[in-house]
Amino acid sequence: MTVNFDLIATDGAARLGRITTAHGVIDTPAFMPVGTAGTVKAMMPESVAATGAQIVLGNTYHLMLRPGAERMERLGGLHKFMNWPGPILTDSGGFQVMSLSKLRTIDESGVTFQSHLDGSKHHLSPERSMEIQHSLDADITMAFDECTPFPATHDQAKTSQELSMRWAERSKTAFVKRQGYGLFGIVQGGIYPDLRQQSVQALTAIGFDGYAVGGLAVGEGQDMMFQVLDVTTPLLPQDRPRYLMGVGRPLDIIGAVLRGIDMFDCVMPTRSGRTAQAFTKRGTVNLRNARHQDDLRPLDEECGCPLCRNYSRAYIHHLFRSEEILAPMLLTWHNLHYYQDIMRGLRSAIAAGKAQAFAQAAMELERVGDIPILNL
Amino acid sequence: MTVNFDLIATDGAARLGRITTAHGVIDTPAFMPVGTAGTVKAMMPESVAATGAQIVLGNTYHLMLRPGAERMERLGGLHKFMNWPGPILTDSGGFQVMSLSKLRTIDESGVTFQSHLDGSKHHLSPERSMEIQHSLDADITMAFDECTPFPATHDQAKTSQELSMRWAERSKTAFVKRQGYGLFGIVQGGIYPDLRQQSVQALTAIGFDGYAVGGLAVGEGQDMMFQVLDVTTPLLPQDRPRYLMGVGRPLDIIGAVLRGIDMFDCVMPTRSGRTAQAFTKRGTVNLRNARHQDDLRPLDEECGCPLCRNYSRAYIHHLFRSEEILAPMLLTWHNLHYYQDIMRGLRSAIAAGKAQAFAQAAMELERVGDIPILNL
Repeated sequence: MTVNFDLIATDGAARLGRITTAHGVIDTPAFMPVGTAGTVKAMMPESVAATGAQIVLGNTYHLMLRPGAERMERLGGLHKFMNWPGPILTDSGGFQVMSLSKLRTIDESGVTFQSHLDGSKHHLSPERSMEIQHSLDADITMAFDECTPFPATHDQAKTSQELSMRWAERSKTAFVKRQGYGLFGIVQGGIYPDLRQQSVQALTAIGFDGYAVGGLAVGEGQDMMFQVLDVTTPLLPQDRPRYLMGVGRPLDIIGAVLRGIDMFDCVMPTRSGRTAQAFTKRGTVNLRNARHQDDLRPLDEECGCPLCRNYSRAYIHHLFRSEEILAPMLLTWHNLHYYQDIMRGLRSAIAAGKAQAFAQAAMELERVGDIPILNL
Repeated sequence: MTVNFDLIATDGAARLGRITTAHGVIDTPAFMPVGTAGTVKAMMPESVAATGAQIVLGNTYHLMLRPGAERMERLGGLHKFMNWPGPILTDSGGFQVMSLSKLRTIDESGVTFQSHLDGSKHHLSPERSMEIQHSLDADITMAFDECTPFPATHDQAKTSQELSMRWAERSKTAFVKRQGYGLFGIVQGGIYPDLRQQSVQALTAIGFDGYAVGGLAVGEGQDMMFQVLDVTTPLLPQDRPRYLMGVGRPLDIIGAVLRGIDMFDCVMPTRSGRTAQAFTKRGTVNLRNARHQDDLRPLDEECGCPLCRNYSRAYIHHLFRSEEILAPMLLTWHNLHYYQDIMRGLRSAIAAGKAQAFAQAAMELERVGDIPILNL
């Protein structure tokens, strides 16, 4: 076995599970903070762990350009480099090549592109992506694919998906098996049920340690995303983890868990932590807003993160207005803590057979909105 | 008694002491990290305490403009606002009005100026400065003074010093006495021994809880600064703490302790933490330099800070090159830890009667420079 998956309980389509990797276990449903360039931005790794996160995501595209894959291998891999002893999942680099690099050309072999940092020329292919992710020492490696853009016609989505499936096979061939390390395939096919179905068939015929659903959260909206999940996740093997890539907002995650997804990643909690947007169970709160400037209350009095335990809204507002580094430090921590609170809540709810009720309560509370202003 | 000072031991002119304030004790010689706008930049307050710092400095000028003195008082004072339960010293605002504000005019009453943030008009006087520092709930309040520029003629320095002495008297009158809270006077007089002597006489006649030496580290150089200390500190009361404002580099601090100074503040360890400059016992090290990119070794293998315990030079170099927030977070922590290591070393050395030897060893090691490159 490469990475192990134990399905502990189900509640409708929702699943409670545990993934075991070379660097530790991940209780699912799980949210993976994004550590793009070898750091979850504005967080010490021990603080990331303190939020409850058990796995972080690293970006192959960024790391291959800086510090470089071979240097990273010489330096002992990503765990050691960034002082994260727990599991790491790396993406394949394909998505970010298409969104960040310059002058990219794609053909059957892979993608040739110029670095957005210095214009240097690089090539990524299924084989090279596997090699780099091996150098990074990723516990979970993602197959190299093309993320089908949205919108795409059926023909465009089909061509793209079929390329990704051929690349998936080459990824599997190139992946070096090691105990505790796994390779995930990525279902593509845009918004077209027949293409998603064909993609699942192709991937399961190859055989992967887990299955990701890719090409979503690219502008299609939550309804459409859930429709795609509704036709996709029932086809996926029960005994392997499922990962919805790049998703999402709290209610996206909750809805996807109800549809059988086990793993998530998204830059939202970390990125929003740098732009004063707080995620709370009453929806998002913009801490730069002057309504907070005299508010002695914590952001959320029930939250256990340092921001909520030790500081007033007035102080966090002041830090953002003053552009102090402590502002993103504290709010990123809060947002990641809140995301992990959701995952803890989901796992408890599934164990108790109350996943639907949990989702319902979350939706209703978000609709209520932030607590009213309390002037001094 | 307002703030208490116990002189525990002396070694030549160097002093080992302890200051007791409303919010706790400060072992001296002490270094105070600068928390300009209600945060020691890039540091959680519990991390500041973990370095060994027992007191932080707040800037009246910044805080009166944002969030504002009256708002700060409504919010419960600076300790509560910034979650720093320990002692706080605030400056008077005078120095930064002169260095940061726009369109300032000075007269006998005080200084009128425009905010560098929004151009709003403000007035600072001894009375207003005392009031603001009271609102901030500073354990140690600094008298309002004019920092004499460098260079200044004897006449200029005399006029400026005499104004500061009149303001010192007004500061004393306006200061509200409370148990555990103290007011420090500031010796001025530029580089002129007679003016420094007159300033000490004027201040001791008024009577303060501690005495600062101001108007140094403004371009006069270390030799001149030490000469001024040599003629000033012997005149100061033995039973009151002495504070050298805005100083300095490690060897400046060590030299000043040998000349009888007890307290220091400086932005250098925090500011340098944001510009990749590390303070080490072998001098400063620029971590942005490419020589570190393949270096698996810690910055200083004997240092106990998180940067040195958990990360390679290669990683810190990568973080600075990638402009990651974790870079200033870790390096600020290291620099503050290093400064506190110096203070711990000085206190031990004074207790053991080895202050001179400590200073000699520090100077020699700094001269050696950084460890040589070790290529992978």
